[in-house]
This record gives sequence, C-alpha cells and structure tokens, in this order.
Amino acid sequence: MQNFTSIKDAYNIQNLVNEALLMKKMPHSDKHLGKHKTIGLLFFNSSLRTRLSTQKAAQNLGLEVMVMNVGADSWQLEMNEGVIMNGDKAEHISEAAAVIGQYCDIVGVRSFPGLLDREEDYSEKVLNQFMKYTGKPIISLESATRHPLQSLTDLITIHEYKTVARPKVVLTWAPHVKALPQCVPNSFAEWMNHSDVDFTIAHPKGYELAPEFAGDANICYDPAEAFDGADFIYAKNWSSYQEYGKILSSDPAWMVTMDKMKRTNNAKFMHCLPVRRNVVVEDAVLDSEHSIVVQQAGNRVWAAQVVLKEMLLTQMRTESPYLF
Amino acid sequence: MQNFTSIKDAYNIQNLVNEALLMKKMPHSDKHLGKHKTIGLLFFNSSLRTRLSTQKAAQNLGLEVMVMNVGADSWQLEMNEGVIMNGDKAEHISEAAAVIGQYCDIVGVRSFPGLLDREEDYSEKVLNQFMKYTGKPIISLESATRHPLQSLTDLITIHEYKTVARPKVVLTWAPHVKALPQCVPNSFAEWMNHSDVDFTIAHPKGYELAPEFAGDANICYDPAEAFDGADFIYAKNWSSYQEYGKILSSDPAWMVTMDKMKRTNNAKFMHCLPVRRNVVVEDAVLDSEHSIVVQQAGNRVWAAQVVLKEMLLTQMRTESPYLF
Amino acid sequence: MQNFTSIKDAYNIQNLVNEALLMKKMPHSDKHLGKHKTIGLLFFNSSLRTRLSTQKAAQNLGLEVMVMNVGADSWQLEMNEGVIMNGDKAEHISEAAAVIGQYCDIVGVRSFPGLLDREEDYSEKVLNQFMKYTGKPIISLESATRHPLQSLTDLITIHEYKTVARPKVVLTWAPHVKALPQCVPNSFAEWMNHSDVDFTIAHPKGYELAPEFAGDANICYDPAEAFDGADFIYAKNWSSYQEYGKILSSDPAWMVTMDKMKRTNNAKFMHCLPVRRNVVVEDAVLDSEHSIVVQQAGNRVWAAQVVLKEMLLTQMRTESPYLF
Repeated sequence: MQNFTSIKDAYNIQNLVNEALLMKKMPHSDKHLGKHKTIGLLFFNSSLRTRLSTQKAAQNLGLEVMVMNVGADSWQLEMNEGVIMNGDKAEHISEAAAVIGQYCDIVGVRSFPGLLDREEDYSEKVLNQFMKYTGKPIISLESATRHPLQSLTDLITIHEYKTVARPKVVLTWAPHVKALPQCVPNSFAEWMNHSDVDFTIAHPKGYELAPEFAGDANICYDPAEAFDGADFIYAKNWSSYQEYGKILSSDPAWMVTMDKMKRTNNAKFMHCLPVRRNVVVEDAVLDSEHSIVVQQAGNRVWAAQVVLKEMLLTQMRTESPYLF
Repeated sequence: MQNFTSIKDAYNIQNLVNEALLMKKMPHSDKHLGKHKTIGLLFFNSSLRTRLSTQKAAQNLGLEVMVMNVGADSWQLEMNEGVIMNGDKAEHISEAAAVIGQYCDIVGVRSFPGLLDREEDYSEKVLNQFMKYTGKPIISLESATRHPLQSLTDLITIHEYKTVARPKVVLTWAPHVKALPQCVPNSFAEWMNHSDVDFTIAHPKGYELAPEFAGDANICYDPAEAFDGADFIYAKNWSSYQEYGKILSSDPAWMVTMDKMKRTNNAKFMHCLPVRRNVVVEDAVLDSEHSIVVQQAGNRVWAAQVVLKEMLLTQMRTESPYLF
Repeated sequence: MQNFTSIKDAYNIQNLVNEALLMKKMPHSDKHLGKHKTIGLLFFNSSLRTRLSTQKAAQNLGLEVMVMNVGADSWQLEMNEGVIMNGDKAEHISEAAAVIGQYCDIVGVRSFPGLLDREEDYSEKVLNQFMKYTGKPIISLESATRHPLQSLTDLITIHEYKTVARPKVVLTWAPHVKALPQCVPNSFAEWMNHSDVDFTIAHPKGYELAPEFAGDANICYDPAEAFDGADFIYAKNWSSYQEYGKILSSDPAWMVTMDKMKRTNNAKFMHCLPVRRNVVVEDAVLDSEHSIVVQQAGNRVWAAQVVLKEMLLTQMRTESPYLF
C-alpha cells in the first residue's frame, strides 16, 4: 500500500479486516517494523480519536511520532499555485510538504472541507498537494471528502459484531446544529458498497450523497422505515451535497430513538463520534446495550495499525527489493 | 493503588516518600514496568511543571506518553447528564472519557475549578466523570479541590530538608492579583495533617479552608507570628472558601519577607510555583539560601514516578493475579 | 560544546560539517548517546522546520523529547529582574528556567526579537536568562539576533553542493510584506566570514547588518550585479538594523528571478524557508534545478544532530571525567 486516502488504496479489504482483528490480540508483535522510522501527523483541524489512535498505532509499530497542529504550532499554508504570496500565508504547500517529507517516512494529514465551494472541496486540493509534494507515503486522517480510517474501523467493527452472514446495515442521517462535511457518510458508503452487506442510506430529500459515493445503495426517505430488520444502525449528520454545505432539515423525527431501534433486529448502534446527545441520538440508545460506539472508537487503533503496517511493508519492499 | 486523586488513595504515605527518594537515586531501574503501556495526559488548563514532570516520570518508567490540550487540540466537553447538546460543546464526557480509556492504560487529568459555584467545584464533577467513564486508572494532575501530586512532592521535600524529627510547618496565605483555587492549600493541609509535623495555617480572617481540609491544624490570623520557630514556610495564595472565589484581602503585610523569615528557625521557603515575585514573596527570600522552590519542583518527578509505579503494579496484579 | 547559541560555541566548524555529512549516511549509529536523557524544546514562537528537525535529530540520538509551546501550553514569563509581578505574567524566568532544568538534560529555546527596541533585542535577554538560570546546556532554536543551527545547515549544504574549492556565496536581501528579524542574515554572515568562501552581501542602502556580523564581507548595493559569477545565491528578507525594525524598501527589483540567476555560475538557490513565492523569489527559480531549498531544509536534521551529539559528549565528560 503506497498511500491510504480512499478505499482504492486497499487491495483486499477482507484481508485488512482479518489482520486488524489479529493485531487486536497481539498489538506489539510488529514493533520491529517501524524501527528508526518516523511518522508525522499534521492536523489542520481538531482531533481526539484520530490523534490518539493513530499515535497509539504508530507506537505499537515502533514508529517515532511527531504531531503538529498546523496554524497553531507553525503558520498558515498557501495551497494555490502561481500566487504572489503577499497575504497572510507565510509558506507554500510545495515547500512545507517537501520539507516535512525530508523529516518523516510517512505523513498523516487531517484537513476538513471549507463547505463553501463544492468543486474545490471535491477536488481534494490539500490532500493532493501533500501527495504531490511530500515525496513520502500519505495517510489520510480525514480529508475534504473521505475518512477512510474511520470506514475501515467501521467494517472491522461490523465484522466483530455481526450475527448473520450478510447483515443489513443502515446509514441514517440525523439532525445537528452545525453544517458538517460529507466525509464520513461518503467514505462509509464507499466501503459498504464494496462489502458483503445489505446497505441502505436513509435521509431527508436533498441530502443525497454524490453519486460516486452513494453507488447502488438502497435509498430511503423515511426516518423510521429503514430501521426495519436492520442489524446495524449507523447515525451521522451531514450537510447537503446538492445545496452544498447547507442545512436543509432539522426535523427531530430523524433523531435515533429507542422507539425506532425496536423496529430493528436488535441492531447495534454505531457512530464515528463526537456525537451530540439528544440531538443525533437519544441518551436511552447510547446508554443501552445497543450502543457499540466506544468499542468502535477503540477499533480505530487496529485500523490505523494495519494500514501503517501495510505502508511500512510496501516502503521496505521498495527500498530493499531483494529482501522480499 | 487504583487511582490517585487524593491522600485517601495512598495506603502508606511514608512508604511513598521513602520509595520516591530511592527512585531519585536510581531513576531508570523500573523502566520495564511501563513496557507496551500508554499514559494519556489531558490538560483542560495550562501547565508547566505538571506537564513536564509527569511526562518525565512516565518516560522513566518506560511508558509511552500522549499529551492532549483539551479544547485546543480537540473541542469542549459536556460534563452534565441528560443535556440536549445543541450548544457549543461537541462531545459528552461519557464518550470522550470512555474512548480515551480505549487508547490509554492510565489517564491523567488536569481540570481547575470555575470558582463561581462552590458546590459544583467541591463535587469534583470533572474528575468524577473521568473516573466514572474512562474505565482506566485516573491520576489527578490537579482537580477542582486538590493537587495531590504537589502535596506528595511537598512531603518528600520536607523529609529531604528537615533538620529536626518533627518540624514546624507553616502554610501561610499571601496576596495575589487573581482569584486562585484552594487546591494546593487544601491538599497540603490534608497531607500535613496525616504527617508527623507540627502544622500551622496562617491567613487573614475569611480565608479559612473547608473544615475537612483544615482538620486540626493550628490557625493563626497574624501575618508574622506564625513564623516564630518555623522550620518550613510554605506560601500560597488562595481565594476565599466562605465567600466563595472572592479576594477579601490584598494586605501586603502577608507577603513573605526576609524580616519575617528572621523569626523562623532558619526555615526553608517553599512554594508550588508559579510564584509572583514581590507580591507573594520578595526577591530577597526567593534568591536566598532559604528558598528550596526549585528543588521542590524537581521532586515533582519522583512524586509522579512513585505514584505511577504503584498504579502500574496494581494494574499488573489485577490483569495477572497469579503472577504475584 | 557546552551551549550552542552562536558560532563562538563551535571549536572547529569544518569538523562539525564533516561529521554531519557522515551522520547523514548513518543516522542511527549514536542512538546510545542519549539513553536516559531528555531534551526540552521550548517555543515562544511558531516553528515548522526547527521543531521537526530538532525533534528528529534528538530521536536519532536516543533522547526523550518534550516539546512545549510557551504561552499556549503554560503562561507568559517575566524576563526582567526586580519587578513587582502584579501584571499579566504569572511566572519569572528565573523559576521557570531553573525548573525546566530540573527535568531536562539539554534545553532548546526559540525566542524571536520584538523588533521595537534594538538594544534590548541585541542584548539577547531571553536567551541569556535561560543560560543564567536553567543550569543545563542551552541550544538556540533561533534567538533575537542569531539562528546558528540554520547557519551550520547552510554551511553543510554549501559543502555538499559546491563545485569549486572556494565558491562565491551571495547573501541577497529580498522584499517581504512583514518586518522580519536579522537573525538569519546575521548568523549566515557570521558563519560565512569564518569559512573558506568568497562572500558578498547585497542589499538596498539602509539595510546594512550590524558591523559585528557583516565583518569583512563585500557589500553590494545593486540588486543584480552581485549575481555575476556567483555559485550560491542565498535570499532572505530582513528589516533595517539602522532604522531598527523598519521596512525601508519593497523594490521588486530585489526579487530573485531567472533573469538574474542567468548571471551566475549556474548557482544553487538557497533560502532558510518559509519563503514567500513571487515576492522574495519567483516560481521559476524555486521550481528549477537551481533550487536546493528542500535539500537544505533536510540538512537541518544533521546540523541539529551533530550539535546535540557534541553537547551530549561534553556533558558525559563533565559528569564522568575518568571515562574519557
């Protein structure tokens, strides 16, 4: 695995899941792989789970970790080409990324979308600039349109908790007070569409995901119907893709409640967190046996670790082709 | 030792002091204990000594350390139950703490009081929420009402520098420009009351500590008298407990001066730092042989290290009961 | 090497360069030197290259690293003596530095000049206070008047890329939108004046460096002439030393262009970064074969590593004089 920025970078997602679940039992058995190597984790945006779980995964692999909050620790970066840099941005991504690549063997980048300009966000400019200029493997810590480490985590968790061979998985939109990116639902849909599950996306009209992400998923416009017979309810708010970045609904009927959970096949409740209690999902669900959100977050370590292991192995094969 | 949030968590404080002083001579002899374990240090408030000394202690024990400034690195946490989270707090402590517990074997938390609502502060809500939800041992890095790592440090330092079997220890209030918590004096009083010292608290009227902390200490309302024959002068400002969070006095007579130090038994001068020079204590004292504030701060490492060692041993006994 | 704050701390700069180039080939061969030792990196100002490269160098030497953003992680420090500290600064440098010295074996400090008071800046108060109070070796991560790790890096890079025995090196002022310190040009001049190069400084009238830094360098007031036959063009903006901290010129003729590069002996283009594209230097130069700014930044690791190694060796000799 060269980079890890979308499902396209994973040769065989079932192998990743199996290896991650093995790692969970023996977290430190690959500690030699990262010896004398350094990962840099760059955050353009806040992070709790991604920050800690990726750091932990890297340490489990024996990597040195350097964390940097871009903006707070250093300064703003210019992302556009050909600019006369006489504004507030002190450094161009082409230098910054190349320099970071001099100090790190793998670079992780978190950069959220602006939600103002759909074309710009969906061009994944920041991530692509890092891939263009860093000269080292890039692992996405959530980009403008995807959150692949989260989606691999979700798949691992579904495999761990499923009680039927081909579970019914429902991604349900839920209300929120702020306009949020489409990264998590985009990515989740992308991974589910490549997995052996019966996949439904439920949301109000106007919240359709981009066709390249929604794929052939079943679409449901009713806030409760999709729950019927579900094995996994995955709740998430996102802002509109069509009326880009807009909040079109705050209908509380879309909140996940125990009433709706009763329509499921004793479904597990999932969410990538952070979650707004009693807005996205009511306390009763989060505090019940249905909820596996904490275990899901715990699996972030094994998703990151299996991906970093694959990236390290690819790098070693490239550097020492006769060893393998 | 399961958690470390107050003196109640210490079975035998004399043993802790002795072991800490031994560690100071051989800092790295327990480097194996933390192997493959991770400590998370969460700061809701600024920190210099606690941040660096706890990190150093953890590294001496071979622990991996992850530091996070809550708020700056991630986002604000909701601490109350049953809330509709449609405000500015993006995540509930119940999820955040549980998730951090998935990534860490021990979790350190610093969270100061608001000084607006005494009942809320003295309920130690933040610390208790972390203890309730993290599922891992919690070490206080200073909470709303106590700073036990500081007090253990202070006791270690008093043992190191005492020249009589039962020294006279004086905690003296001193002026300050800001309203400060009662954590350090509360905790110091709690530990002194459990130690073999002659303990006096000196402060203006209205600055009485809560009875559960003041205990049976001698109380003195004169800014100089308590200095007579003292072996240790421990200066600290705090805001009123009775008129909660208020500044009732800024009388400069309470500043520690060389004149007052002359009344002592050649006392050592202690302060937890940071200290406002020429407000809390005059330069002449801090720059004299009386002052051991730097050595005291240096002992923060050994206090943290002995506590973390005890916590690691307890954890290992719990995980592998047949090993011990 | 006791401290490293200017070229005066380097006994033999050619040895440093040679050893750094050797390290670049075997980065991990001194991993044992830093065992059980800790370096603290204190940033009063933003940093990208210095932050990451010094951390990497320290890790290559087996040091534990503790990074702290002063102000953000802790609080503002009072730098002046004899002050009544009733303002916004919570701690005096004399305590803060001494305490940090208790936790660290080597301390790195970055602190930029205020550019308001030349005498104060050129007195190097912050750096000197750290040297006075820390009680441990100090490594400058850029101070008010110098950036010696950058200059050692520059010298290493010139040695790597030079094609003649005694290259012509030109430091050329370039325009910028903000008033910048003189640290990098001061330091660069100081190191070039001690090296076997033909050294010229080019700048508009009024931008003369302090005489103790400019030394015997050739001075050129023409924006293009100095390029004739140059082997290395080193661009950098700085504010005036004479009209202290002022911007006296924004003449675009001083921008480095391909037209001017054609006058050189196929010169390499250097800059300490971050660089404002199309203000300091045009894209065409940075994106051409002339530019070695990324390789130069990569060499920051080896400059820091050779300096830290020398400091560790000096410390070990002092601690165990019979070992050597």
